[in-house]
Amino acid sequence: MSPATTPAYRRLSVEARRVQLLDAALGLFAHHAPEDVSVDDVAEAAGVSRPLVYRYFPGGKQQLYEAALGTAADALRACFDEPQDGPLTERLGRALARYLAFVDGHATGFSALLQGSGVAATSRTGAIVDSVRTAAAEQILSHLDVTEPGPRLRMMVRVWIAAVEAGSLIWLDEGKELPTDELCAMFLDHFVALTVATAATDPQTAGVLQTALGLERGDGPAGTLARRALPVLGDAGHLL
Amino acid sequence: MSPATTPAYRRLSVEARRVQLLDAALGLFAHHAPEDVSVDDVAEAAGVSRPLVYRYFPGGKQQLYEAALGTAADALRACFDEPQDGPLTERLGRALARYLAFVDGHATGFSALLQGSGVAATSRTGAIVDSVRTAAAEQILSHLDVTEPGPRLRMMVRVWIAAVEAGSLIWLDEGKELPTDELCAMFLDHFVALTVATAATDPQTAGVLQTALGLERGDGPAGTLARRALPVLGDAGHLL
Repeated sequence: MSPATTPAYRRLSVEARRVQLLDAALGLFAHHAPEDVSVDDVAEAAGVSRPLVYRYFPGGKQQLYEAALGTAADALRACFDEPQDGPLTERLGRALARYLAFVDGHATGFSALLQGSGVAATSRTGAIVDSVRTAAAEQILSHLDVTEPGPRLRMMVRVWIAAVEAGSLIWLDEGKELPTDELCAMFLDHFVALTVATAATDPQTAGVLQTALGLERGDGPAGTLARRALPVLGDAGHLL
Repeated sequence: MSPATTPAYRRLSVEARRVQLLDAALGLFAHHAPEDVSVDDVAEAAGVSRPLVYRYFPGGKQQLYEAALGTAADALRACFDEPQDGPLTERLGRALARYLAFVDGHATGFSALLQGSGVAATSRTGAIVDSVRTAAAEQILSHLDVTEPGPRLRMMVRVWIAAVEAGSLIWLDEGKELPTDELCAMFLDHFVALTVATAATDPQTAGVLQTALGLERGDGPAGTLARRALPVLGDAGHLL
């Protein structure tokens, strides 16, 4: 919205104005590196004056960045919110689809953020990003019905989250070569593969896997992977 | 070495002095966050005067940091240097063992570096870290005997490298709970699992897997994983 269509001092409640400014900031930080966004840009995008932005965010750009990041973190945390019902791979698939839609819609900001680069990266922004990773790991462990994960299961879940982040960055970096649904299926396959590999040496993960397999459907992600993996393992007979 | 045992102006060639200062800097940056290291610390550790450090590194601490980082990057690249001979998992296992020994010996610096945090992180330091990742991916692809990797195989290798980095950081963060050899075996299992999952949908990776399996020994990492994974997959029969 430009100032011409929306008067700078249109009356909004304090909360509505704050939300409007944050939306404008998030839109800009989603598509530009933090160093390329100014308070003036936010004012212009929101159709308000620069002093009005400073009235709500006296800390200027850094405060806007951290507040927008907090909003983005809430949105990312919400991606992993999923009813504890049905096959695990289907629950995780829905969460991943929401996560990838967010990545797709906030490409530049997501890259800058996760690479911890740019002038706006501080220990506070790092902590916000870490809080999203922690929330995602807790959500996944709660879907696995585990309250006290041992080091191997916890490591596996956290490594998979890192793999999804890295894979998403590579995907953006390479111009979104794979369609989103194939990327989503790939991350799901990674999850199943890492779970099986971890279950092979960790009894707790083996228990989780046993329960999870009982819930899977033959035409679901785990069944599809299992049927496709069998033929490529045909040459492993001498290892058994 | 303290100034008491090594006189500040002991004669060294220019190159030897440079190496000595870099060694001192790398030792400090390995065990402290960049913001906690000063030029005075480097001078003291090397047993020389502060002006002498500035004569070699006029850019002061930032230049020392980037030069030390370059040395660390060379060391990390060297970890993945491995003859193209024998089972792939054994080659990768030796490279991983060297990598984890480096991580173990440079804990604080490694964490600060990969988290891109701290005052010394710039686009140049980010580029040095990325160059190590690229070199590792190229080494792995050359061991897989692939010159033109498609998007899925390339993504798998890069995601695994990110998983190893993330897993190493978690390992350091959690006080090195697992012994190094178990961590190494875990990362190898992840590699095998991700390769099998990728081979299930990607013909190029399936070809790579077929060749690789032919080289594996029954008592090697892939054989051990295969035998341990079979029983935990006992409940997957209804998926096939």
